[in-house]
Parts: sequence; C-alpha cells; structure tokens
Amino acid sequence: MENQCPKPIRCKAAVCRAAGEPLVIEEIVVDPPKAYEVRIRIICTSLCHSDVTFWRMKDFPGIFPRIFGHEAFGIVESVGEHAEEGFAVGDAVVPTFLGQCSDSECVDCRSPRSNMCSRFRFAVRPGMPRDGAVRFSDAQGRPLHHFLGVSSFAEYTVVDVNHLVKVNPAMPPALACLLSCGASTGVGAAWKLAKVEPGSSVAVFGLGAVGLAVVEGARICGASKIIGVDINPDKHELGKKFGLTHFINPKELGEKTVSQVIIEMTDGGADYCFECIGLAALMNDAFQSSREGWGKTIILGVEMHGAPLSVPALQILHGKSVIGSLFGGVKPKQDIPILADKYLNKELELDKFITHEVGLKDINEAFDLLLQGKSLRCTIWMDK
Amino acid sequence: MENQCPKPIRCKAAVCRAAGEPLVIEEIVVDPPKAYEVRIRIICTSLCHSDVTFWRMKDFPGIFPRIFGHEAFGIVESVGEHAEEGFAVGDAVVPTFLGQCSDSECVDCRSPRSNMCSRFRFAVRPGMPRDGAVRFSDAQGRPLHHFLGVSSFAEYTVVDVNHLVKVNPAMPPALACLLSCGASTGVGAAWKLAKVEPGSSVAVFGLGAVGLAVVEGARICGASKIIGVDINPDKHELGKKFGLTHFINPKELGEKTVSQVIIEMTDGGADYCFECIGLAALMNDAFQSSREGWGKTIILGVEMHGAPLSVPALQILHGKSVIGSLFGGVKPKQDIPILADKYLNKELELDKFITHEVGLKDINEAFDLLLQGKSLRCTIWMDK
Repeated sequence: MENQCPKPIRCKAAVCRAAGEPLVIEEIVVDPPKAYEVRIRIICTSLCHSDVTFWRMKDFPGIFPRIFGHEAFGIVESVGEHAEEGFAVGDAVVPTFLGQCSDSECVDCRSPRSNMCSRFRFAVRPGMPRDGAVRFSDAQGRPLHHFLGVSSFAEYTVVDVNHLVKVNPAMPPALACLLSCGASTGVGAAWKLAKVEPGSSVAVFGLGAVGLAVVEGARICGASKIIGVDINPDKHELGKKFGLTHFINPKELGEKTVSQVIIEMTDGGADYCFECIGLAALMNDAFQSSREGWGKTIILGVEMHGAPLSVPALQILHGKSVIGSLFGGVKPKQDIPILADKYLNKELELDKFITHEVGLKDINEAFDLLLQGKSLRCTIWMDK
Repeated sequence: MENQCPKPIRCKAAVCRAAGEPLVIEEIVVDPPKAYEVRIRIICTSLCHSDVTFWRMKDFPGIFPRIFGHEAFGIVESVGEHAEEGFAVGDAVVPTFLGQCSDSECVDCRSPRSNMCSRFRFAVRPGMPRDGAVRFSDAQGRPLHHFLGVSSFAEYTVVDVNHLVKVNPAMPPALACLLSCGASTGVGAAWKLAKVEPGSSVAVFGLGAVGLAVVEGARICGASKIIGVDINPDKHELGKKFGLTHFINPKELGEKTVSQVIIEMTDGGADYCFECIGLAALMNDAFQSSREGWGKTIILGVEMHGAPLSVPALQILHGKSVIGSLFGGVKPKQDIPILADKYLNKELELDKFITHEVGLKDINEAFDLLLQGKSLRCTIWMDK
C-alpha cells in the first residue's frame, strides 16, 4: 500500500515573490493531500496569458508569494481520503482551473448546457478550494499561495479531485498539457459553445494560442471560411497551419473598418465571431462583424481594463447574439478525454501549438517569449 | 373574374398630419395593388407602442402626413399581378411589419434560425417595399406616407405579398389582429427564440402587451416560475391572469436591487430574462438577473434613447448569453398559422389581451388609453 501515509515532499518550484518580478527557483515543501485531494508529480507545464495577468496584479486577487501555473500534465503520486474512488497512484492526469464535481445534485454539472459547477463555484482563490488553506511552504516554513487550484510551476502540487482529469496515458505529456487550458478553451468554444457547422463562416479576433485553437476547432467542425484578425503580420502564415483561409491586419485597412471587410468577405457578416483577446472595443468589432439573422459573437477574452461589453442595442434586435464562457464551454472531466481521443484519432492537431521548450530553471525565458509574442506555447519540463 | 381590373377606392382613414398631433379622419384614395401586392379591407386594427414611437418622431424616419397602424386583420379585396399564387379575393389575412419572401434562394428564409428575410430586408420606409412609392393620396390628391409596410389605420390598404399571411377564417378578427404584432412577438420570444423548457424560471421586465405575451408564452412552454417586473402595481393582478407566479415592483424594494431579489427567488438567477421596454438600464438588470451557466437574456425592446446594450464583460464569461430579435423570432408565414392553431386548440389564450374597443372615428381614444397605461390592446373596428 504505497499510498498508506504520504509524507511532505521537498522539491523545487518557481516561486513569484512580488508582482511582475522574475520567478525564483526555490526548494519548497508540498504537504500530503488531504481529503478529496491528490498530490501529483508535474511532468511538464506551460505558460498561459492568465498566469501573466495575475503575475502582474498588485492588488487582490493578486497575492504573493505565489506559485503560478495552471496548464500542466502530471502523474498521481499520492491520494487523499475519499479520493481513491477516482484516482490511483500512477494515473496520468491533467489538472484544470475549472472544477467539476460531477455530482448528480449539482444542477450545473448534470446539465449539458453548463460548465460552471455550482456546488464548487469558480473563484480565483489563494488557497485550496475546500479549506482555503495552502499546501505549500518555503524553506523557512512560510506559506506560499496557490493559483487557480493548480499551481503547476512546481515539481509536485496538490489538487482537489474536482480539478483533476484522468487522460489516456498514450497522450504525449506536452500535448496532454495543452488540454489543461488553452487548446481546450479554443477548440471547445468552436465545438461545444458555438457549435460551428460545416460550411459556416468564422472570424477569430486575436491569434494567440486560444485564438488559433478556435481556428483549429472551426477547421475540425468543417467551417469553410475562417478569417483571422491580428495586428501581428506573422500570424498570417502561422494561422494557415491551423486552417485559416483569410487574414486581416487591422493596421492595413486604410479607411475601412474590420467589420466592413468581414461583412464584404462573408456577404453579410460571419456566422460566428470569436473575441480571444479581452478588449471591449474588439468585442464590439466582433459583434458588428457577425451576420444579421443568426450571427453569434463568442467572448473568450477576459476584459483587460474592466470595461463593459457594449454593443449597439438596435443591432442585436436583428437576430444577433452574444455568449461568453470560461474554458470554452468545456466540461473538464467529460470533454478533455474526448479531446484526447480526437488527438489520438489524428483529428485534432496539437503539435503545432508548441513553439518552444525549456527546463524549469529557465522558466523566465518562457515569460519573455510570451510577452514578446514569440511563442504560442513553451513547454516547461520539470526534469530538464 | 372579379379581380380583373381593380380601381382606386375612396374610403376613410385616420391620417397623422404632424408628429404627436391627434389623427384626423379623412377621405383618402387607395390605389389598386401593383405586381406582388394585395389590397385588403381592414376589419379591425389595434395600436402598438411602435406606432406611438414613430407618431412622436419629428425627424426621419418620422415623416408626415402618414397613415400609421401595423397590427391588423383584413379580407383580401383585390390581388395584383403575380400575387394570385398566394392570395385570392376573400382570404382572411394578417399583415405583418416583418416580411418573409419564403424564396428558396433567400438564405435567411430557408434557415430555421433566422426571421430576417435578407432578399427584402427590414427597414422603416415611407413607401411600399419594392418601388418606394405610395399607394395613398388625400382628397386633394397629395401623397400620404406608409408605415412599416402595413398602414392599417384605414378602411383599405395595399400590402406587399411578403408582408401578408393567410389565417384560418375561424379566428375571431380581433384576436387574429393580435397575431399581427404584439402577441406573436412575446409568445414567439418565449417559444421560438428562448425555447423556454418545462420547469424553467423566467423573469419578464415590463408587463405591457409584449411582456404579458412573453408571460403567456412561458406559461404555454411550462415554465414553473414566471416573475414579472413593473413599476405599475396594477400589473400584478393583471399578470396573474397570464400565468405570472411572482411580481416585483422595483419602487418597493428598499435597499435591494431587482437582480438581487430575482437571484434569491430563483436560487441563483432566472433561466430566461426578457427585456420588453427598451431601456439600456433594464437590459443590464435583466442580464444581471440571469443565472450563471446558461442564463439567457432576451432583448425585445427598442432602446428609447439610442443607448448601447452594456453589460459586465466578466459576467458574460460565466456562461451567460444575450440575444435579440424583431418579432420574437417568429417567421410570419410559417409561425402565425401555428399560433392561430394554438389559439383554436385552446392552448394560447388571446382574449385577455383585449381591454378596450372603439370605432375608427374614436381612434385618438386608443392613443390616450395606451399612453395612460390603461389599455393593453384596444381593438379599433372599421365598421363602428
């Protein structure tokens, strides 16, 4: 019974001591899992824009010292009480920032319409979801805060069972890791949230990893026209690899607006417009670019400046709609295994999201690459 | 061949000579129908808030002199060229402000998702939809403008075939008239646009005829909780007749907001929130009152002050959506006959919408009653 009495583990982690400062590789202590928790050995992790958003955040829910990271792949190292039903030592797992209790009493978990578990609601907490306390301490025994229930910039982490999904061990670790957040969000938004149909037209505002995952999802769904919008001209060639059929650089339009160009390209507006950046002005551009009758605008970006979503009230009366989602409407425990199967069946192409890789000690390089717009996903390996 | 060569008809109409002025009963001349047009004898009509909106409007698309009215029931009097396929003299018909060409080449008309015919697009024109000219002139031969393709405040009017629906002659005229706009919009919004399910919770902001038609539609769809919001306390008792289960008067809440009360009443927010007034602040209230996970806000009101629809961008990420529609998503030629059947099958109750009736000569009384909030629908009979 290797799981009889897990002990605290000493290991390495990349700790952020203050907002916006480079991470520091430190020796930390990771407590054993409590009830309904699992401790996992992180094999690899990657950096997502949400890590950067909270890394910069000086005020609560920005809090320091903290261990960031929420896109990862790992192996179960030990299992807390009541967690044995779902997980065993050695399981290949993907942690997720969005929980899913899957309880038959959770109206959201049992509904196909929602991915917002209402028994364990989503929040940006500094501790574990159930007791609010931390499972990390530094070499001096001082607590280190968690991030989004995952904190994967460490060799070991403790995760609630609601935030953990078993995946097919045939999945390559670096690709399973992508299903933990970015790729699932974008592909899910096209597949589950918008339900893009064959032959439809799609416009994607912002071609970062999430935006390109929307393109990938739209391609899989059979969209015939996939228009990418980005101010970085390099995204044109890159986007083609994902299935982009048209590219618009808003800086090169002269007198015309983005929506005018999209309306011309699609003979009336795109069926589905995705906002993947988090700017109110872009949300409105996406809305204006959607067709009358049934055009759907899908909001995936977290608005950066706290501005409201604001669109012409008369235009929405012409049959348009706006919908938003965290994690692209994906229900983690149900849908991540489906996405893994789609990869293993060569339907979903994940390799092309990975542009760089580093070892944990060089994690700050991953920040630089993302901030400079050079990387889509940089795999951060724990054993390199 | 009674339809061989229709002549101009002299008849009475209620003409509006200037913005906001009482209508004047005048003798007018109604031209014969041109190609793809039908001339109908109006049996009865009723006054809708959109008539009032444009009656007050000093600047274009406000235009005078004009014959208002767009909710009506009539009998086909004569049929223009190419209109014989769909209509014959004596047919019982309902004209509609929203056209439907039903052509297989119209992507919107052939799609179940849209009611926004894109071959003949919706617009507030002062003339007929095809040639832009008028079919009305006054006693001095001067042109009189049309309204929304209907202009039913006249004993006879000319309507494009796209704006005309045949109805079961078993329908009582005053009730068929309601299907021409208000009742169809509200019932359709619950039935077709929101697709309210049995057992769901519904909040309706504004209990005018359209709002109460939403209540009626939600009742038919089997909603278990139907909450009405109105600042007029008389709407509580009235609403119960339509199926209202709860009533909120925003003026009597003290410290609490409407959305707080609805979230408490529904244990998290209503599944469907309908805005039926046309105020941006109320649209936001409706959105805030909708539940996370799948809460849908349905915009039916035409924003009165030109303000945008503005809602918290972070909140939409929690699985909420907003959708808008003209005519509640109803495709006139397909759905009005279904609604008539629902009435004839005693499923849809239309009688309770009619609170008053007058003859054409007293049409200004219908304006007074609506402006004072005393009437829901006042039937205006041509022969009284």
